[in-house]
Order: sequence, then C-alpha cells, then structure tokens
Amino acid sequence: MRALRFDDHLHLTTDEALPSPTAAEALIRVRLAGICHTDLELTHGYMGFSGILGHEFVGEIVQGSDEWPRGTRVVGEINIACGKCEYCLGGIPSQCLNRSTLGLSNYGGTFTDHMRLPFANLHRVPDSVTDEQAVFTEPLAAALQVPELATIRPSDRVVLIGAGKLGLLIAQVLHRIGCDLAVIVRKERPKRLLAQWGIATIDAQTLPEKSRLRSAHIVVDATGNAEGFALGLDIVRPRGTIVLKSTYAHLPTVNLSKVVVDEIKIVGSRCGPFDAALRMLQSKQVDVTSLIEATYSLDDALQAFDHAAQSGVLKVLLKP
Amino acid sequence: MRALRFDDHLHLTTDEALPSPTAAEALIRVRLAGICHTDLELTHGYMGFSGILGHEFVGEIVQGSDEWPRGTRVVGEINIACGKCEYCLGGIPSQCLNRSTLGLSNYGGTFTDHMRLPFANLHRVPDSVTDEQAVFTEPLAAALQVPELATIRPSDRVVLIGAGKLGLLIAQVLHRIGCDLAVIVRKERPKRLLAQWGIATIDAQTLPEKSRLRSAHIVVDATGNAEGFALGLDIVRPRGTIVLKSTYAHLPTVNLSKVVVDEIKIVGSRCGPFDAALRMLQSKQVDVTSLIEATYSLDDALQAFDHAAQSGVLKVLLKP
Repeated sequence: MRALRFDDHLHLTTDEALPSPTAAEALIRVRLAGICHTDLELTHGYMGFSGILGHEFVGEIVQGSDEWPRGTRVVGEINIACGKCEYCLGGIPSQCLNRSTLGLSNYGGTFTDHMRLPFANLHRVPDSVTDEQAVFTEPLAAALQVPELATIRPSDRVVLIGAGKLGLLIAQVLHRIGCDLAVIVRKERPKRLLAQWGIATIDAQTLPEKSRLRSAHIVVDATGNAEGFALGLDIVRPRGTIVLKSTYAHLPTVNLSKVVVDEIKIVGSRCGPFDAALRMLQSKQVDVTSLIEATYSLDDALQAFDHAAQSGVLKVLLKP
Repeated sequence: MRALRFDDHLHLTTDEALPSPTAAEALIRVRLAGICHTDLELTHGYMGFSGILGHEFVGEIVQGSDEWPRGTRVVGEINIACGKCEYCLGGIPSQCLNRSTLGLSNYGGTFTDHMRLPFANLHRVPDSVTDEQAVFTEPLAAALQVPELATIRPSDRVVLIGAGKLGLLIAQVLHRIGCDLAVIVRKERPKRLLAQWGIATIDAQTLPEKSRLRSAHIVVDATGNAEGFALGLDIVRPRGTIVLKSTYAHLPTVNLSKVVVDEIKIVGSRCGPFDAALRMLQSKQVDVTSLIEATYSLDDALQAFDHAAQSGVLKVLLKP
C-alpha cells in the first residue's frame, strides 16, 4: 500500500505492508485525511518525528469487532493512551503519561491507504455528516478545547488573533457562545468567510487603537508565532486570560512582569472533545467545507504538501 | 522631615516638606517600614520611578477624620484607585486603570517620617498585633494572593521555588492549606526556618529526580528570575498551574509549546487581601518576626539598603 513518510525528508512509498492491528485495534481504510499546520512543522523537525505522517482522517472499518463491524464509518482521537496512569484513570487520556500519538509520536499516521487505531479511540460518524465534514472532527475538537479549558462568558470581550485553518474553526466556536468577538485577520479570504458567518474582524494591517483592544477579557492566540503572543499580552485586560492554541516553532521572549502586575492568566490548550465536535457537525452549526482549499489523490501527496505550505492556504485534503 | 529618595540615585533628604493630604487622605506618622525586593529593583530602573521609596509600613494617624481619629494605628493598601473605572466598580481597585501606587508610581512612599494615604486604603491594626508584625501585612497579603487567584486543594502536590522574604511567607500560607508542599531552597537560614515550621524542603543544589518533582499540581515561582520559571515548567505536571509571584528584571524565553502540549495554566499574582493578612497575624498563624534581619534608623537608610541588597538577607526594617 501507499504512505507519505517523513524520515529527514518527505517521500511517498508504494510498498508499505498492511498494518497488523492488535486485538485492541481496528484496521481502518482511510477515506479522507487532512493536512494540519503541525504536519508541516514535523517536516521541519518538530518533535523529531519519523514515520507515516497525518492525524486527521475519516475512514471505515476493514477489520473490527462485534461492536465495530466492517464498513462502520469512523473518526478517531489521536492520543493512544495506556489506560493505567494517573491521567487515564482521572479521565484525561489525552494527557496520558505513556501515550503514543497518531502520526506525531511512535505511531504511524493517516496519510496512507490503511491504518490501525485502538477501538477506544474511535467515534462513529453519523450518516448525515459527509466525509468532507467528518475529516474536520479532530481540528474542530481542538477548537472546542478553548472553551473547555478557559471559562468564556457570553458577556466577555474576546479577541482571536489569527484566522488560519484552526483560527476559522475557533472563530465559529466562540461566536456561538454569544460573546463580543473580534478576529484579527490578515488575508482577504478568511476576512470574507468571517463576514459571511457574521463574525466581526479587525484588519491586522491597520490595527486600531490598541487601547480599545486592550479591554479584552479573553485573547486566543492561534497564530503559532511569537508576535501573536506578544500582541496578545498587549491587548488583554488586567485579570484577563490568554489562551494559547498552537505550537510554536521558536521560543519566544515573554514579558512575565506584565503577567504578574496585570495578574494575567495564560492557558495552554491542545486536543479537544470529539463527541462535542461531532454534535456540532451533525447539527450543522459550523461551516467546515468552506475551508477546503483542494483535495489531492494520495499519489500526489508531495504536491499537496507543497500547496498546504503556501501562505494563506486553508485545508488541503488527501484522498487515498 | 527626612525621606529616602530615588531620582537616578539613592539619597537621604532632611528638608522634605510635610505632605499635604487632601480631604480624602490621612496624614500618617510612619512607625516602621519594610524594604521589599521591588524597592531594590526600582533603584535599578524598574518602572522608571523617581520619588520617595517604600510601600510597606505600619503607622499612626496624625491628621485623620471622625472615623480615623488621631493615634489610630494603621497599615495601608498600596494602590491609590480612582473609584470610577471598570475595575474599581467591579471590586478590584488593586487593578484600577488610573491608579497611582504608594512608593511605586506617582505617589510618595513610606521611607520617611510622615506620609499621606487615602482613608479608603487604611486598615486598623488590632492591639494584639505588634508593629514588628503589622509591618508584614502588605507582603503577607501578597502571599495570600496565591490561593486567592489559583485554586489550591488540600490534596494537591505543591512545589514552591524560592525561599526569600516573600517565599517564606508564601510557604507558611500554603502549608496551612494542608497540601503536600515542598519548598526548593538554596540557603541555610530559610532551610532552618522552614524545618522549624514543619515545612518540607528540597535542596536546590541537589535537586532530586525531576521526575518525582514533575508531578506537581501547582508550582509557585517566587524567585523573580528566569531560571525559576524554567524550572517551574520542568516540574509542573500536565494540566498543572504555575503561579508567578514576583516581577522579573529581564524578559525570559519561555517554552510556550510545552505550555500548549501539556495544557499548563500560568497565573500572575500581585497585591493581596489585607483583611485576611491581618486575621492571620492576629490569630498568630504566621511567624513573621523570624524574618526580621535588622532594623535601622531612617538616618541610616542607605546602609539599610546596602544590607537588604546582600544575597540571602531577609527583611530589613526602617524605623523613622
């Protein structure tokens, strides 16, 4: 079978052996997979990963169990947990101390024809949710982790910095809370999408009086760069919260004295609730398909990666 | 009258005019004042302050009101608030958007014979609390701000980094929560004090397996340096909280990706509740007088500052 691998360079293989699932794992045929910002960072050495890339997917069971019969359409959580540590027993398997992570550490990913994943990680996709929607379950869950970890009230002034693939999902999630949301955005395409969804925007090129912005109760940084975080510190109000929503390629310098004097709270946020994401997709509360930039055959995965790496490009999908 | 001033250099004046309080302010004779780490930082240019230094004090009313008669022994909150902004109206005058700060910004301090302060900032000192205890009200309140802003449960594993003047107060406050507390400490004197109070310590020179430490639910950084914060990030558990409890002279580089991946919360914490601090002093729950290193006459304030700046020195007091 085919797979997109990264071992110090990115290459497509065509002679991969079919994965051998354990008794606790399903064998899954990948129907559609999504390229994430983190996949691009992995190819620049982030986390020192080597292996088959990819962690966003929708697929169907090829070899399952009584509970997960052949043909069941599924999405899956990316953390393969031990089930025994303090976090697993405490109901937070996403922070399992002994975890592997699908396409991110010690576990082959989704940019391939067939993959394996523990039954414990699987979620059924409702019939009314298409493959093109279901493939967004993982990033939408990550967006939902923002209100999962930070209290965001309907009366709060919220500023989201960054309107890329993930930012546009976070924007829709926050908009539904009813809060006074504004998204700082640079490019025309996300600006149009946000306007279409009725979400207020602030042009990054002509940032208005920061004093007005400085009143934000909550700032969400979805830029993944140090400038985003520094801007967040500028515009959050005293006693406000900054939610960090992406990994950073470089170590930024942080004005911790300001964090102390203004009593700011900073909250890191990672993988989120799949059930909630599927509920939102099923009830059509979130527009994900407008984020699709292009769909490539797995045969053209290298081109797909080049495309995904271009500035301003939204979601690129791979169809095995 | 005399005053210790900082205008690009530290000097003692003897011809200061008596302050002229407004109708909303008391004139106070300073009985005892304490030198804080922040005072030392101000003399290195922090906040660009110039004027009479000092924000820790106990004093007595010289010119007051019906409610605050002459002779009343008082301590006072350091934030002079506008009473009108969102924070004042919201019950958080310490974060007033238009504030001056006693001995820290736009308001003369406590290292002098007589000072002024708004009646709204004053708290009566109970008779059973001595001057030597009452002068610790402000830093003890700052220590109490740690559990005020971060939820600390009796079942939590808590590591406090730094056992200076403020760290030793925080240690006693946290110890009273019943949590599993250990203090990372460098010097012999605070090590002995902590042992005397029954608080567990970890020698900073021989830090044990960080893996054991890494399980901390809560880390409090009271070092005021970038290394303290970096160590905090090393030892906090996933989903744990780091409380920042001092200002930083330099801008540290921070591993924000770790904050995201481990979903860490960082909480800045500044001035705290005076009422609670006075309750703890009155009920003799905290030993503050063991922290007194020396008491100098205001005439010898420059020597007192030199002493306070020495490594490992605890609280130096000024007696006008």
